Amino acid sequence: MFLRNCWYVAAWDIEVPREGFLARTLLGEPVVFYRDTKGRAVALENRCCHRAAPLSIGRHEGDCVRCMYHGMKFDASGACVEIPGQAVVPPNTCVRSYPVVERDRFVWIWMGDPARADASDIDDFFWHDSPEWRMKPGYIHYQANYKLIVDNLLDFTHLAWVHPTTLGTASAAELRPTIERSTEGRGRLSITRWYLDDEMPALHRRVARFSGKVDRWQVYQWTPPATLRMDAGSAPIGTGAPEGRRVPEALQFRHTSVQTPETETTSHYWFCQARNFELDNDALTEQIYDDVVVAFEEDRRMIEAQQKIVSQTPGRPMLPIAADAGLNQARWLIDRLARQEAAALGTEGRS
Amino acid sequence: MFLRNCWYVAAWDIEVPREGFLARTLLGEPVVFYRDTKGRAVALENRCCHRAAPLSIGRHEGDCVRCMYHGMKFDASGACVEIPGQAVVPPNTCVRSYPVVERDRFVWIWMGDPARADASDIDDFFWHDSPEWRMKPGYIHYQANYKLIVDNLLDFTHLAWVHPTTLGTASAAELRPTIERSTEGRGRLSITRWYLDDEMPALHRRVARFSGKVDRWQVYQWTPPATLRMDAGSAPIGTGAPEGRRVPEALQFRHTSVQTPETETTSHYWFCQARNFELDNDALTEQIYDDVVVAFEEDRRMIEAQQKIVSQTPGRPMLPIAADAGLNQARWLIDRLARQEAAALGTEGRS
Amino acid sequence: MFLRNCWYVAAWDIEVPREGFLARTLLGEPVVFYRDTKGRAVALENRCCHRAAPLSIGRHEGDCVRCMYHGMKFDASGACVEIPGQAVVPPNTCVRSYPVVERDRFVWIWMGDPARADASDIDDFFWHDSPEWRMKPGYIHYQANYKLIVDNLLDFTHLAWVHPTTLGTASAAELRPTIERSTEGRGRLSITRWYLDDEMPALHRRVARFSGKVDRWQVYQWTPPATLRMDAGSAPIGTGAPEGRRVPEALQFRHTSVQTPETETTSHYWFCQARNFELDNDALTEQIYDDVVVAFEEDRRMIEAQQKIVSQTPGRPMLPIAADAGLNQARWLIDRLARQEAAALGTEGRS
Repeated sequence: MFLRNCWYVAAWDIEVPREGFLARTLLGEPVVFYRDTKGRAVALENRCCHRAAPLSIGRHEGDCVRCMYHGMKFDASGACVEIPGQAVVPPNTCVRSYPVVERDRFVWIWMGDPARADASDIDDFFWHDSPEWRMKPGYIHYQANYKLIVDNLLDFTHLAWVHPTTLGTASAAELRPTIERSTEGRGRLSITRWYLDDEMPALHRRVARFSGKVDRWQVYQWTPPATLRMDAGSAPIGTGAPEGRRVPEALQFRHTSVQTPETETTSHYWFCQARNFELDNDALTEQIYDDVVVAFEEDRRMIEAQQKIVSQTPGRPMLPIAADAGLNQARWLIDRLARQEAAALGTEGRS
Repeated sequence: MFLRNCWYVAAWDIEVPREGFLARTLLGEPVVFYRDTKGRAVALENRCCHRAAPLSIGRHEGDCVRCMYHGMKFDASGACVEIPGQAVVPPNTCVRSYPVVERDRFVWIWMGDPARADASDIDDFFWHDSPEWRMKPGYIHYQANYKLIVDNLLDFTHLAWVHPTTLGTASAAELRPTIERSTEGRGRLSITRWYLDDEMPALHRRVARFSGKVDRWQVYQWTPPATLRMDAGSAPIGTGAPEGRRVPEALQFRHTSVQTPETETTSHYWFCQARNFELDNDALTEQIYDDVVVAFEEDRRMIEAQQKIVSQTPGRPMLPIAADAGLNQARWLIDRLARQEAAALGTEGRS
Repeated sequence: MFLRNCWYVAAWDIEVPREGFLARTLLGEPVVFYRDTKGRAVALENRCCHRAAPLSIGRHEGDCVRCMYHGMKFDASGACVEIPGQAVVPPNTCVRSYPVVERDRFVWIWMGDPARADASDIDDFFWHDSPEWRMKPGYIHYQANYKLIVDNLLDFTHLAWVHPTTLGTASAAELRPTIERSTEGRGRLSITRWYLDDEMPALHRRVARFSGKVDRWQVYQWTPPATLRMDAGSAPIGTGAPEGRRVPEALQFRHTSVQTPETETTSHYWFCQARNFELDNDALTEQIYDDVVVAFEEDRRMIEAQQKIVSQTPGRPMLPIAADAGLNQARWLIDRLARQEAAALGTEGRS
């Protein structure tokens, strides 16, 4: 089962075309995305209410979509506005529509109770379209449950083992982060890792404009079910980075890693690595993107292998270790939301 | 579950070879077809009663088939006639055999209670081998439940949407057919669609020996579970087609569309489009066949996409519209037969 | 369900590398094999106890394996000896280890109650590494339950039908073997087939140093769950083979066929065909190996086709014939062991 009463990323803005459709399964449900005549993203259940044909192989007609099996036409609210050969459209003839918010180049979708959808709950990713930052949007499809990806992102000791030649240094294995948990709203984790007087990882060295030892940081917020926003970088040692000073040659990145369940064993994953330097250097944009893809493939290989073993050994427990503090707190927050949703359903059921 | 007490098409005559076997799953059961020394089609369960090896990788020996795992030999009635190294064949050693009727180039099979098999129930397809008609037999394999194909054939408004450049004209979307239902025997639908003073669809234009507006007809009988026989054509307007007159230049076709379930989500589909003109024009035979295949691939794309959504959203209802009159009646007839079979089993169970 | 309290072949010796790992699913469980610094084979559950990552994509470190997800290190007993960033390894932190015995070039594994593992129960395959015999080790992966392969090996009448141009002669269809059953220990079948004054099968003719009629034998022991050891050969007629004399030109082979379940519908199969003549003729070694592979592919085609029909017709009975004496006894011995294991579990559960 999936959390429903929360905003999920459904796509990068550019994934939803001006003409035609994006078809995507989210939380096990078929969803079709398109843009209305004002360019606003629309999300409908990708299933005609008549005979279950997918609307995504239908026809985009202005603000509407027409099912190309028998010609029923639906507007952006999901309401049926035309049934060929039938003078009257019965009331409530519709497909399900989903609240959608487009912000910071993400298309967010709300698949739970629409009455609870509040756009102010959506996390801020200003570096996606700020003139002071530059990034290239990335997407990976995973053959694994999204929680296994969350685990990965909440325990960076894996950088030392999975990414020794890309994102990690040996120090990552031992370093314990500061973890702060907030239970306000749907909850939040704030995780801070400082590597003082350390080496740069390979992917920093490849783009750095200085050499030598660094003070390095990974400071991130994680919000359930699966949103990670990170301030990360490397500064020459002793230049005051831990105290908040950022000298001009310091490498500063903003990193995005967001997941949405596709099914119980597959997931969507959107990411980017924004920088605040050499903004017009397109080759650098591509290089940073390519480097991150190499590192993220290292994760994917491990996590998909892990999913296979999890599926092969159902019911076997996982043994906690000290490094799990972050991921345990994340799972706890996810489970808390699940209990809240179950309780709310129970209440509604009784009333 | 499938209807069992009815005749199903199992193959075109040419699909069952003189030498060797045709292996085909029908209603979920493995069946092997071959021809006896007189050329008559035989249908046996494709499963040796000894150790379940498929007979279709066995040896065709005259009227018999020998399992090539341990050499057991079965005659055309399914009776075991030889067990190597064993003097006596115990009584009732056999594989299941199925009543088979070969008629009008179709091989029909009865997979229900053999006592109820009555060949006079089989529908007439005289145009398959009449000297006055010419056709090329077609077969399609479908990744969809057969009822979704039945739906498609019982509502021709889809011609306007799925086949705008092949079988359909815009008028198909609005036109309401006359539907007559007979509940005699296993039931029947008679559906009549007249398009007066209309355009020819593209596939008619491509073979017509005249141009201009037409009076056009689709007159068909559908019998459960999945048999469609159609008289279709186009005549120059005002030449009396609706009154039954067929001027020499009128295009006249007889169309066959028949399905048999393979599994719950896959189907066999046999079709042909016979004509009564230019009988010796082999290029025309091929052209008409190829044109129909193009149009039928348009259906297959839609119906297989529909099946995927149906499988992904189990239990979700379908919303009836006015155009569904035909398919609703078809489903009603199928369900009626299913209830009759269940009741008959119950009676037999009690007695 | 599988028998657990017995030795299973897990690999040929050469399949477990000096560096790195062999990952293999046995009885449905993921197992990783590697060699310690003394070259001894080690078998651990291929699932890190922390987050279920497979150890087989980890790092081989001397006697140990390190999970490369978060760096946990396990020794050859499965005990965790290091958790990075954590001073203390809690007691009982471990992955499951399996008793392993390497003998006669086979790596044997015990996946049941370790207290019952007794290496003296392991069958003898001296011809695998005797200086008087020569063989090339073979392995086949099967899309079939291992019992269907056992059936095949316990009824050699199939040689006449499945292998008419390789292993079989027509006489195989009729010949009844002598079958002796021992119920001592886990039980054993001894099966003897003598073909007197017979033809050689093709694969014997291809390597024989004489021609003409032969006295031919297949004398084998089968032990549950799936171990076959055979003395087979052809000698010129009248040279005393049935009485135990083996003239120098007689063809003498020792044959090995052993299966281990991978899953309910897939199996591992190890085999070899050792000879005691022309030991240094490497081309002959390859030829005999290739010939056996051709014949074994004949079996695989039949048995995998059989598995498909078995899966398609669940619950349908199999009809015994006289030739089944051997396989019925084998199934009886397997079932007896299964009952013993179930009873032992029950007793343990109560005590």
